[in-house]
Amino acid sequence: MKYVSILGSTGSIGTQTLDVIKQHPDQFKAVALVANKNIDLLEKQINEFQPLIAGVVDEQAYTLLKDRYTGSTKLIGGKEALIAAATIQEATMVITAIVGAVGIEPTVEAIKARKTIGLANKETLVAGGPLITSIAKEYDVAILPIDSEHSAIFQCLEGQTKANVDSLILTASGGPLRTWPSERIASATAADCLKHPTWNMGSKITIDSASLFNKGLEVIEAHWLFGFDFDHIDVVVHPQSIIHSMIRLKDGAILAQMGNPDMREPIQYALTYPDRMSLDMKHLDFKELLTLEFMPPRVDDFPALRLAYEVGKIGGFKPAVFNAANETAVYAFLDGKIVFSDIYKIVTAVLESMEPDDTFTLDNLLAVDQWARIKATEFINRR
Amino acid sequence: MKYVSILGSTGSIGTQTLDVIKQHPDQFKAVALVANKNIDLLEKQINEFQPLIAGVVDEQAYTLLKDRYTGSTKLIGGKEALIAAATIQEATMVITAIVGAVGIEPTVEAIKARKTIGLANKETLVAGGPLITSIAKEYDVAILPIDSEHSAIFQCLEGQTKANVDSLILTASGGPLRTWPSERIASATAADCLKHPTWNMGSKITIDSASLFNKGLEVIEAHWLFGFDFDHIDVVVHPQSIIHSMIRLKDGAILAQMGNPDMREPIQYALTYPDRMSLDMKHLDFKELLTLEFMPPRVDDFPALRLAYEVGKIGGFKPAVFNAANETAVYAFLDGKIVFSDIYKIVTAVLESMEPDDTFTLDNLLAVDQWARIKATEFINRR
Repeated sequence: MKYVSILGSTGSIGTQTLDVIKQHPDQFKAVALVANKNIDLLEKQINEFQPLIAGVVDEQAYTLLKDRYTGSTKLIGGKEALIAAATIQEATMVITAIVGAVGIEPTVEAIKARKTIGLANKETLVAGGPLITSIAKEYDVAILPIDSEHSAIFQCLEGQTKANVDSLILTASGGPLRTWPSERIASATAADCLKHPTWNMGSKITIDSASLFNKGLEVIEAHWLFGFDFDHIDVVVHPQSIIHSMIRLKDGAILAQMGNPDMREPIQYALTYPDRMSLDMKHLDFKELLTLEFMPPRVDDFPALRLAYEVGKIGGFKPAVFNAANETAVYAFLDGKIVFSDIYKIVTAVLESMEPDDTFTLDNLLAVDQWARIKATEFINRR
Repeated sequence: MKYVSILGSTGSIGTQTLDVIKQHPDQFKAVALVANKNIDLLEKQINEFQPLIAGVVDEQAYTLLKDRYTGSTKLIGGKEALIAAATIQEATMVITAIVGAVGIEPTVEAIKARKTIGLANKETLVAGGPLITSIAKEYDVAILPIDSEHSAIFQCLEGQTKANVDSLILTASGGPLRTWPSERIASATAADCLKHPTWNMGSKITIDSASLFNKGLEVIEAHWLFGFDFDHIDVVVHPQSIIHSMIRLKDGAILAQMGNPDMREPIQYALTYPDRMSLDMKHLDFKELLTLEFMPPRVDDFPALRLAYEVGKIGGFKPAVFNAANETAVYAFLDGKIVFSDIYKIVTAVLESMEPDDTFTLDNLLAVDQWARIKATEFINRR
């Protein structure tokens, strides 16, 4: 039996994690669930899964739930809920399924509490790569990727020595604007960007998918997860999202991991690793006609991908600022405050106004992250 | 340094094996080369690679070469050449690249001499599966597949426990008749069948590719190589031959091995296993547009595939007869003695005239193989 704590249980990854847990009640038990503010869904989850603790980050939502809930699960409010769930003694694994840089601190605490990490919060490694990987090494904790691309690479790398691997190849759906003419992209609306062709995900990541910021974040994440330098991480557009990613071996042979686009597959693999179990979903069926296409990414039209390589190679706090400024800009775009092309411009402007890096500590990282958000907001308000 | 003996050095696999050896002169040395009768090419290979011994199976061709050759390589004639090369003390690895059942006996001898086997002769395992696998186990000898499909599966299985694997999925190009209307297939000519869309191979295997006999043989080969039962070996048509084969894991995830269709890749992997080395060939390049298609095989129009599953499941000498009768019929077809659809009919007729199986020994196997060829020839002569 594996005991699982889920940070972000009411989001897309969180609900799918609970679906996997439900499929194998003899294997997995959810011991902690934390939501941001969706207390209606959280309450249902509490009643169904009977965790030991449940948390609500938003204080107001917490109070509402606290006032009406009468069951035996212990409720915790505020950011402490994340730390409590990340370190709860009964959990052997923590799924970090919250979106954004708020996932960094609880991940650090979970590692220090020697929990296996199921990493669905890519910002943690993008912003905190040097710190997180060194702490994980120090505490001998495994970080298992839940992003479909990174899970695919992780699966392809099983049984390979690093000396045999030439490079990683991340696939990208190309997002909803993939075929748009260059001149129209700048003015894409949030509604345009939210029509993702293959994956059903949260709104922030769907916008990132349209801009290729998501693929850029994933390139940086892959660098930290697998220890490959940026010249050995490639991106190829594959609109059908059936091949989830690949590795190229020294002799030129390629290994690919494939399946229908359904996050329950990588979620379950993180939960069962290194074993596999049956999974009830619509699996890839070669009895049906299938066509897979591949093409290079349009880096001139979606410059975020090139920028990700640049900030990734420089390192330090650049990727953290890249991530924080983008996150702030994406929410401004979703709120209708800026246009699509402003996201990239704001991120570039914030990166350009950075001061020289301080030492890479958690406190400094969180301070830089905070600074980048404030700076991005300033640029947003000037638009 | 690995010392390599090549049975069938002047054929398609043999010449490509020498090309790989030439690319890594510090890693590999050819110590024995055996050809059937192409002594002009063999003589060139002898002069270039300076093996310790060279063999010519055809006695007449052997005499011709013997009379004119003045170098220091020891020449051997007749079938003993195959045994001598298979067991030569200096070799650590034997590449069995001769076509047909003639490969069985030297493979057995090579295993008994504890040589690692690079298996490009699929008939060995199709006909002699029970014997070869038990001898290989007894002598603790590895059989490394050189068929592109089996090499792909072998590569995908690296690092997987058998408990995690659900099934093997062999890809098939579908051959040159893949899109032909059902009614035209029966009368396809040898010239039609030799126009293979993706792989450049010998003529026997190219005809087998058109009839799907080749894929049937590969299904039986996969059964013996990897120990999966026939209900867990699937075939999918993939006309581009870029995905060389796949495995399906217990959770439904698929691992695939990909590359341009070039036999030097699986050949080199058998030579370097478990390591990888650079290989100078045109590698798969995702900077170019790429489209991959998949569809089910047309088993009603190419019934050899279904027949292969049937004989494979029955086992005993059935697969040996299936293989020997097909081999005889294919050469008759290439000689213009029978039409395309006769190949399947003759194989079926020979299978139906089989007597109950005797004990599975090498002598009995060779006798049954011989019987099937004679029987097939009888049926051919009646047409």
